[in-house]
Amino acid sequence: MSGRTFTLAELAARLEGELEGDSQLEVEGVDAIALAGEHQIAVVLDAAHAAAARASAAAAFVAAPGLVLDRRPVVRVAVPRVALIELLELFHPQPPRQAGIEPGAFVDASARLDPGVWVAGGARIEAEVQLSAGVDVHAHAVIGRGSTIGPECVIHPHVVLYPGTRLGARVEIHAGTVVGRPGFGYHRDAGGRQRRVPQVGWVEIEDDVEIGTHCAIDRATFGATRIRRGTKIDNLVQVGHNSDVGEDCCIVAQVGISGSVEIGARSLLSGQVGVADHAVLDADTRVGAQSGVVGHLAGGEWIGYPALPAPRARRVYGLLARLPELFREVRQLRAECAELRTRLAATVGRGGMEPPPGDRGPVG
Amino acid sequence: MSGRTFTLAELAARLEGELEGDSQLEVEGVDAIALAGEHQIAVVLDAAHAAAARASAAAAFVAAPGLVLDRRPVVRVAVPRVALIELLELFHPQPPRQAGIEPGAFVDASARLDPGVWVAGGARIEAEVQLSAGVDVHAHAVIGRGSTIGPECVIHPHVVLYPGTRLGARVEIHAGTVVGRPGFGYHRDAGGRQRRVPQVGWVEIEDDVEIGTHCAIDRATFGATRIRRGTKIDNLVQVGHNSDVGEDCCIVAQVGISGSVEIGARSLLSGQVGVADHAVLDADTRVGAQSGVVGHLAGGEWIGYPALPAPRARRVYGLLARLPELFREVRQLRAECAELRTRLAATVGRGGMEPPPGDRGPVG
Amino acid sequence: MSGRTFTLAELAARLEGELEGDSQLEVEGVDAIALAGEHQIAVVLDAAHAAAARASAAAAFVAAPGLVLDRRPVVRVAVPRVALIELLELFHPQPPRQAGIEPGAFVDASARLDPGVWVAGGARIEAEVQLSAGVDVHAHAVIGRGSTIGPECVIHPHVVLYPGTRLGARVEIHAGTVVGRPGFGYHRDAGGRQRRVPQVGWVEIEDDVEIGTHCAIDRATFGATRIRRGTKIDNLVQVGHNSDVGEDCCIVAQVGISGSVEIGARSLLSGQVGVADHAVLDADTRVGAQSGVVGHLAGGEWIGYPALPAPRARRVYGLLARLPELFREVRQLRAECAELRTRLAATVGRGGMEPPPGDRGPVG
Repeated sequence: MSGRTFTLAELAARLEGELEGDSQLEVEGVDAIALAGEHQIAVVLDAAHAAAARASAAAAFVAAPGLVLDRRPVVRVAVPRVALIELLELFHPQPPRQAGIEPGAFVDASARLDPGVWVAGGARIEAEVQLSAGVDVHAHAVIGRGSTIGPECVIHPHVVLYPGTRLGARVEIHAGTVVGRPGFGYHRDAGGRQRRVPQVGWVEIEDDVEIGTHCAIDRATFGATRIRRGTKIDNLVQVGHNSDVGEDCCIVAQVGISGSVEIGARSLLSGQVGVADHAVLDADTRVGAQSGVVGHLAGGEWIGYPALPAPRARRVYGLLARLPELFREVRQLRAECAELRTRLAATVGRGGMEPPPGDRGPVG
Repeated sequence: MSGRTFTLAELAARLEGELEGDSQLEVEGVDAIALAGEHQIAVVLDAAHAAAARASAAAAFVAAPGLVLDRRPVVRVAVPRVALIELLELFHPQPPRQAGIEPGAFVDASARLDPGVWVAGGARIEAEVQLSAGVDVHAHAVIGRGSTIGPECVIHPHVVLYPGTRLGARVEIHAGTVVGRPGFGYHRDAGGRQRRVPQVGWVEIEDDVEIGTHCAIDRATFGATRIRRGTKIDNLVQVGHNSDVGEDCCIVAQVGISGSVEIGARSLLSGQVGVADHAVLDADTRVGAQSGVVGHLAGGEWIGYPALPAPRARRVYGLLARLPELFREVRQLRAECAELRTRLAATVGRGGMEPPPGDRGPVG
Repeated sequence: MSGRTFTLAELAARLEGELEGDSQLEVEGVDAIALAGEHQIAVVLDAAHAAAARASAAAAFVAAPGLVLDRRPVVRVAVPRVALIELLELFHPQPPRQAGIEPGAFVDASARLDPGVWVAGGARIEAEVQLSAGVDVHAHAVIGRGSTIGPECVIHPHVVLYPGTRLGARVEIHAGTVVGRPGFGYHRDAGGRQRRVPQVGWVEIEDDVEIGTHCAIDRATFGATRIRRGTKIDNLVQVGHNSDVGEDCCIVAQVGISGSVEIGARSLLSGQVGVADHAVLDADTRVGAQSGVVGHLAGGEWIGYPALPAPRARRVYGLLARLPELFREVRQLRAECAELRTRLAATVGRGGMEPPPGDRGPVG
């Protein structure tokens, strides 16, 4: 319930779409097809949702040209998903930002805060930190000594930036994520004791990156662990020291990226993927959920443990379920070969054919 | 060391069990069979623990009828595990609740707190929040604007509820869990840039749900991401936007549930399971640890990557280890067929039999 | 830029190495081979980095004897990785510790703090806690009632120790980790409702353990969940109730250890490994990334789902990719056997040979 109302004509103009139906119909919100009420508009993302749309109570729809919607009011647009984003932004505008330093915030005297910064109660801004204009630091976030945060970043509650972390502009980090912990590096001596390798690098997160909750992005041994411009990271993701995640990547929940990994631009790692130390993924690599990546992936789609090119992986994992039948069939073939051998020996009138080595192999 | 003492007769009455042994024997606590001392009682969950029980120093036992315990004092009960719970509750009662608002708590003037609420120092209760009677909000928890929390909920330290989260009664959320982050949804444009899809829904957690530490339950695009009554969730679990976890489910640590997933009542997802977008699990589905779920599982037990019905999965993954022998056997069969072909050709006196295509396949 | 300068002679003396080159050359820092500038030293860990070293701008190197570096200044040492650690410690000394209780910290009157403790603003030290000398408690950490913390422990921001947690000396716990949540144990009744088993044990973490961010170490039902001396744990790791992780183990990110697991000394669990309830790993067991462990592993290296001895696992997962060829080959062999059978029948002049059962099996 946003309190905003638009006519279909206004919405069509905003979406740069073509209106079919009553231009003066008033719309009070956007909702899912199944949830939309009689004063709301819903977006039909593709033809698979057309039947649900026709059964919906929605007042009007947004849909691609040609989709049949029983003469219901519709705004035709080329890319319904973009229209959905625009409708959501229209009916649910961001609340106005606060600014200033709330009581209970701790801000070190040597920190430099640009105008318009908001620091919530309980947040801790340590020595020599720099916060650029329009930064939001939510409750209990800890910005470690010497960190620099670019304009319009949003640091949600309980985020911890270890000292020396560097954020570009418009970075958003969700609640509880920890950036800049020293990387996990030890030397094991002859007695088995592990001695820490000090990690004197840092983490650098470029413009327009978003990071979900409970992620762990470790600082580099030397130089930077880097998340490049525009990359989006989901929840509970691990990025090890010295790794470099390229621009516009999409890293889904619970992915684990080890140390010194390179991930090319626009790559997609689906949920729970694991990437081994020093792996290299070229630009535009897509990796299926739970896959295990070792070595070099030269773009394209990969699936499996270990990851294989997707077409092969689909065949392999489809056939995997039929292993019991394959073993049975091989047992039968062995019996059949033995029988043929016996018959052939009888035919040629000699019994001297030896069974081949391995005839009683472990498959049986 | 709880300071409480009960006679065996009293314990037998509490457990509705039948006493064998000295009814006036005093018991000062309950402990594990291996740890229990001479003034403690221990519970023998099943026959596999009988030998350990006979070697235990415990003063007395609780066990099912018929279990032989060398004439040691024993309370016979039908379900020893329930008796264990009752003994633990008896000897370790919950400490009395505190109430009131500690110094250092931040409570917005527009929040509504029912009688008996406890808010610890550092907790943050934002505008228009409603806390029902008997709610505990531990240190540094952040209850976002407009959230509603039902009676007797326990919100542990550092939990973050994003704005608009709804909790039923007796929900317990452990330290650091984050509820209501906007779901992970983007539209990638032709240039590869990702544009966020605003998430205007919320998270709804029903009565008697327990959630462990470091979980991430994302808010829906529209409507609710829902965790239904009685479900128990372990640590480090991800639940994506718009998913619906049914009643009385058990979700073990590090499980990843993607978006728009439906999980039926009483289902069990073991540790590190991954569930793909839009998967549907019928009621009473059990999924083995680390399995990967795609599509529809019609109840019963499933295991594997991808998940198969458990009996087949057990055969498949048992046979998987024997792949090397299977490849060797097929190589041998090929050699044997070739030899038979040669002998047969010699027998029939013609040399014109061509080797079949693929005779030198990659298996060799 | 540490501000410290050493001559090569001084560094060689510190590292107990042998100097080749100008003993009075001044070095201002240590960096990676690729990043080091003309006033810095770099460490060549092994021969694989020799070419990069020769192309580096570094003023000098540390390397093992015999490695050819084009007559550049070099300090020869037996174990370059240890020299790297020592150089990092030399050029990046720990900043001096603070001590005292910052404003905004909450310390219960019954807590006992030894001299030299530091408690940051927002930290919460509950009743009857004991903090030994030299302990650091960072911002917003919560030390639950009755916990005991040994000398020189470092508790990073937002760590939560549930009541009764016990830490040895020099334990370091990184931001956001939660120790001592009640273990995940329930009894499901006939109606499917789950009833919690109270967990009255605790967590004990021995000397020199390090734990990363967002870990969850659950308290035991009875007795202790234990992490033994010298073990190092990465980020996002789960350790279930009653488990016992041995001395000097290395547990990599996102590993999940279930309940009542025993892990022997010096074991290595790579990223995303899952270990089932009651599994036992003998000392010196190594488990490859993403593997699934059930039952008993008797030391050595294990890989796979389920985990197999590594040499077999490497063969199995190498062959797995060739399943499509294996199925094709078995199809061909079946066809060939059928053809041989037909020819043999023709040869012997009878047509009565029946195809064997399963000749049209599901492999085709």
